[in-house]
Amino acid sequence: MTTLKKSLRTRIKRLPERGSFDRKLAHAILDEGLICHVGFALDNQPFVLPMAYARQDDDVLIHGSIASRLLNTLSEGVDCCVTVTLLDGLVLARSVFHHSMNYRSLVAFGRAELVVDEADKMTALERIVEHIVPGRSAEARGPDRKELAATHVLRFPLEEASIKMRTGPPGDAKKDMALPVWAGVIPLSIEAGIPERDPAQGEAHPTPSYASNYRRA
Amino acid sequence: MTTLKKSLRTRIKRLPERGSFDRKLAHAILDEGLICHVGFALDNQPFVLPMAYARQDDDVLIHGSIASRLLNTLSEGVDCCVTVTLLDGLVLARSVFHHSMNYRSLVAFGRAELVVDEADKMTALERIVEHIVPGRSAEARGPDRKELAATHVLRFPLEEASIKMRTGPPGDAKKDMALPVWAGVIPLSIEAGIPERDPAQGEAHPTPSYASNYRRA
Repeated sequence: MTTLKKSLRTRIKRLPERGSFDRKLAHAILDEGLICHVGFALDNQPFVLPMAYARQDDDVLIHGSIASRLLNTLSEGVDCCVTVTLLDGLVLARSVFHHSMNYRSLVAFGRAELVVDEADKMTALERIVEHIVPGRSAEARGPDRKELAATHVLRFPLEEASIKMRTGPPGDAKKDMALPVWAGVIPLSIEAGIPERDPAQGEAHPTPSYASNYRRA
Repeated sequence: MTTLKKSLRTRIKRLPERGSFDRKLAHAILDEGLICHVGFALDNQPFVLPMAYARQDDDVLIHGSIASRLLNTLSEGVDCCVTVTLLDGLVLARSVFHHSMNYRSLVAFGRAELVVDEADKMTALERIVEHIVPGRSAEARGPDRKELAATHVLRFPLEEASIKMRTGPPGDAKKDMALPVWAGVIPLSIEAGIPERDPAQGEAHPTPSYASNYRRA
């Protein structure tokens, strides 16, 4: 399926022209983001927690300690919501009313399931490392069996989801277009600074290029 | 109160040494962030949506159209969760297992209420603009009564909340310290690019310094 599943939950009521159900776009958002916000509810009390993740085909993979309340709750198959938001710019209109943000966000609904098979867990953890720092998994020491056993990996299938985005210049009302106020967009992006070597490590190992040239998107 | 309210909901089970209930730190996180992720649940189905916001004293202000499902649901006084996450760096350990992220996140629980008074709404909207682009509200045309009536402003009191954060170099196990693998942190930040003038606007209005020198944190 090239489109995501529409449903009552994914219906975009407000500004539907900003909505999309395109699966390729969903993949692109997931591949660019670094953290998702995972929501679940206990007795109708919502919890929203930030998590690292990676996409593997049509699954969102998350991981953490087997002692994590979040992971244990999700692994019980409760309904959850996974949201990834990329902030692309600040939209400065002539009127306060039309100020906005340029963004791409994916909101996905469903249930996660535990990845149990050891080989699948290994693959998933490598995928998460490679998603966040491409090139890293070939260098760092991989998980041993004890570490693997201490880690939960969850797979959240990307099925029922919707995208909302805004791009482009401000959309002021006609009557405001001649106001003597600068209007435009301040683009925003996540940028990497100069890598900071672990003070416990000497100069023997040069900074790898995937760290010194780190770029997102 | 200089600390946030502890409760069952804000209890930090995992790695409590990374937790904090310091109100000043909560304010600093809120003041640096640009978007929050708001969670609410309907029949135990969680929804997590990104929103612009601002802090005003001990309230988190959010706003949007009076037609917004999110705002209307929240204004009914449902339990919600407001999370702000600042991603500060990627932590590259010698072992995959100890890879991590440096971050500061605030997770707040409670109920929002509608700001009804017109003057309070005006102040709140100005506060949101100033939070996102300091200096902007003095230039852009302020909301008229019709625009004000079309906008919902919600106040979410910062009471029951917790902070979780990680800073510093990787925390590899002793036995891995001598591995021939570069270890350290790639710092990350949100950076502004060169402002893009609205193509519908001529060169008459120079780019304001709050746009060309935009900086977060």
